[in-house]
Amino acid sequence: MSHRANADQGAGVVVVGAGFAGIAAVGVLARAGRRVTLVDRHGYHTFQPLLYQVATAALNPGDVAFSARRLLRHASGVEFRQAALIGLRLDERVAALDDGTELAYDGLVLATGAATNFFGVPGAAEHAVGMYTLDDADRVRDRLFALLEQADRQAAGAPSPTPVRLVVVGGGATGVEMAGALAELLDAVVPRDFRHLERDATEVVLVEARDALLGAFAPQLRDYARAELARRGVRLRFDTTVRSVTATHVVVEPGGALDAGLVVWAAGVSARELPARLGLPQAGSGRVQVLPNLSLPGHPEVFAVGDVAALPARDGGTVAQLAQPAIQSGRHAAEELLRPGGPPRPFRYRDRGAMATIGRRAAVAELPARVRLTGTPAWLAWCGLHLVTLLGARNRLSVLVNWTWQYLSWRSGPNVVARD
Amino acid sequence: MSHRANADQGAGVVVVGAGFAGIAAVGVLARAGRRVTLVDRHGYHTFQPLLYQVATAALNPGDVAFSARRLLRHASGVEFRQAALIGLRLDERVAALDDGTELAYDGLVLATGAATNFFGVPGAAEHAVGMYTLDDADRVRDRLFALLEQADRQAAGAPSPTPVRLVVVGGGATGVEMAGALAELLDAVVPRDFRHLERDATEVVLVEARDALLGAFAPQLRDYARAELARRGVRLRFDTTVRSVTATHVVVEPGGALDAGLVVWAAGVSARELPARLGLPQAGSGRVQVLPNLSLPGHPEVFAVGDVAALPARDGGTVAQLAQPAIQSGRHAAEELLRPGGPPRPFRYRDRGAMATIGRRAAVAELPARVRLTGTPAWLAWCGLHLVTLLGARNRLSVLVNWTWQYLSWRSGPNVVARD
Repeated sequence: MSHRANADQGAGVVVVGAGFAGIAAVGVLARAGRRVTLVDRHGYHTFQPLLYQVATAALNPGDVAFSARRLLRHASGVEFRQAALIGLRLDERVAALDDGTELAYDGLVLATGAATNFFGVPGAAEHAVGMYTLDDADRVRDRLFALLEQADRQAAGAPSPTPVRLVVVGGGATGVEMAGALAELLDAVVPRDFRHLERDATEVVLVEARDALLGAFAPQLRDYARAELARRGVRLRFDTTVRSVTATHVVVEPGGALDAGLVVWAAGVSARELPARLGLPQAGSGRVQVLPNLSLPGHPEVFAVGDVAALPARDGGTVAQLAQPAIQSGRHAAEELLRPGGPPRPFRYRDRGAMATIGRRAAVAELPARVRLTGTPAWLAWCGLHLVTLLGARNRLSVLVNWTWQYLSWRSGPNVVARD
Repeated sequence: MSHRANADQGAGVVVVGAGFAGIAAVGVLARAGRRVTLVDRHGYHTFQPLLYQVATAALNPGDVAFSARRLLRHASGVEFRQAALIGLRLDERVAALDDGTELAYDGLVLATGAATNFFGVPGAAEHAVGMYTLDDADRVRDRLFALLEQADRQAAGAPSPTPVRLVVVGGGATGVEMAGALAELLDAVVPRDFRHLERDATEVVLVEARDALLGAFAPQLRDYARAELARRGVRLRFDTTVRSVTATHVVVEPGGALDAGLVVWAAGVSARELPARLGLPQAGSGRVQVLPNLSLPGHPEVFAVGDVAALPARDGGTVAQLAQPAIQSGRHAAEELLRPGGPPRPFRYRDRGAMATIGRRAAVAELPARVRLTGTPAWLAWCGLHLVTLLGARNRLSVLVNWTWQYLSWRSGPNVVARD
């Protein structure tokens, strides 16, 4: 791209965050020939829907991460900068990065994502592990295997060892997938790889504050998920809230203290830090308050999209923090930036449905037009969708190899290694 | 296995270290029905010959690591303990572990491996990275990509940025493979992913104290390797020693200070710490001094094998610290343990040859009967051998996927992501 063309375009668009929302915005802008700088504190995009498979050693971390620079290779007008956003001067249209540089922009898309919301529960941030980043998934996996090592060693010496209890907090899609995968992992590895342990002396408990799993799904799908989790030995505790977490226990109400070797926190995310630090208007859970077209009040050139934004839903509430809303909002912001001066067009989320997998050949899928799948058809739909949307042909191949292997040899369990 | 059978066998054999030597010993003992406890501080076996591919982002760490418990699954008499050996009471036949427990043994195989030998060069241990463990490989990869990110950012702003120089110390097989892979990585990623950088402003330098590469290979293979590395732009500095390493420089003699963004130390390994700490008799490079049958003087039930031991060669010297000697010595120790009271049989290393790969379709192979290969035949032999010996069908498949992908799309470069 010539110097002249750049000058014609002005400072270009800065997109902050290489998650689903940011990548979607970059895609639309790049296809329109706009000059874009993508900024992300990591060098990679994380395919978050499969993090629970990294956490349960079914996939390697590299299978769900995709190099940001590689992703942008064929977009000649797009640059990548590995840095974190630390400040904004909205009136000057300047973003400050933690590498000491500043980027001028004439359009800005904030897609910085969220962080696990521990809801201020004492000890949760210190002792529970979220399920939002690749590091989270690594941490769950490493703690889990260290716990099994330790329990196996204790069981070898003691006649009645302490049971191994894994607690998942939150019965949404992430919690359900995590609990199901943990139960299947215990089924697969305990009897064969940790021979002093009894499977019966290990347990997965799912704690949910409300009276049902998968609140966003239809009742028959919720019932199916509940039955499938129970069939896999997951103990379900409804109407139960977590009061505190320590290194060895979780205190629930009702119920009191429960031994817990690992607490996975899948109760929700919030965007509280960055919007507050940047002085942006905030909605619930610390998300950025945006206008109907996803721009900031008073700054039609600045957009917030994906998990960091309170994306308006048609019913007046906000859209769930999932991949589809992130992608659609990223695209919408980019389209708005491509027609400056035009009348703002409100973001309208098109519900493409939702899926959650409970285990091998067990999933629920809520598709448009009230199509509802359970069991093997839902599971196959889930596998296909995730393979198709997983970025990058090599990652797809690698995941396919791992999944096929896993499926054919499931009883023999996974071989992803825990690192310490 | 019944309690009675165990009692008949006594305390069993303890093997410390899940590398090539330890795994080989366990294999022989398990097939003979002996009760074995394998102890390793990690939970996994590392396929060290491919570490340089992890370091250069061609393979994921999980591709070259294999779960120790999984490996032992079908060996019913073998137990695994994740712990480090911290003490030995040879007269009582007791090994003390860092988890606070002790293991009684009636046979002991020490296969704890080695550590990078920085030869006391000032700053080397702090600033250079070895190439012996999976963590080393991760560290090289992460530093390398962070360095390229930083250089790309600087190059975007400065008219004549500092060149990016990667220095490899040591011209043995590890150094040659590392230097070749780094040069190919720069060829692949710099022009396409780091667009402000010029490939000419990046450089790989290989520093070797002697006057030739690959001292263990035949002259024509050395010449081939030298020519192939030079063709890939690797600057070769022979008769050059490293005097010191800092965070930004390496000082060589002759030559003085050289800017270096990354220093990979492939100059050798030593076993200095553990044998000294355990009070064992030591030979050169801190390795354990063993009798011709690999047992400890005065302790016919204790063996040292693999990189931790000074394995006797037929010519009176010691055998190189490579996979083949490790495997053969592990097997030999196990066979000696299986015939207690018999006359000790000396270890005789059978040379199966050696291989080193320089890059795509470029390798050298020194096989028995003076068969010497270079170029594509050597490279294909190298690929085949490593695939066959790589533990575990799933790892093999995953490596095959990665390699095939890499081969077919090499100009487009790797997609393994750096983590920070």
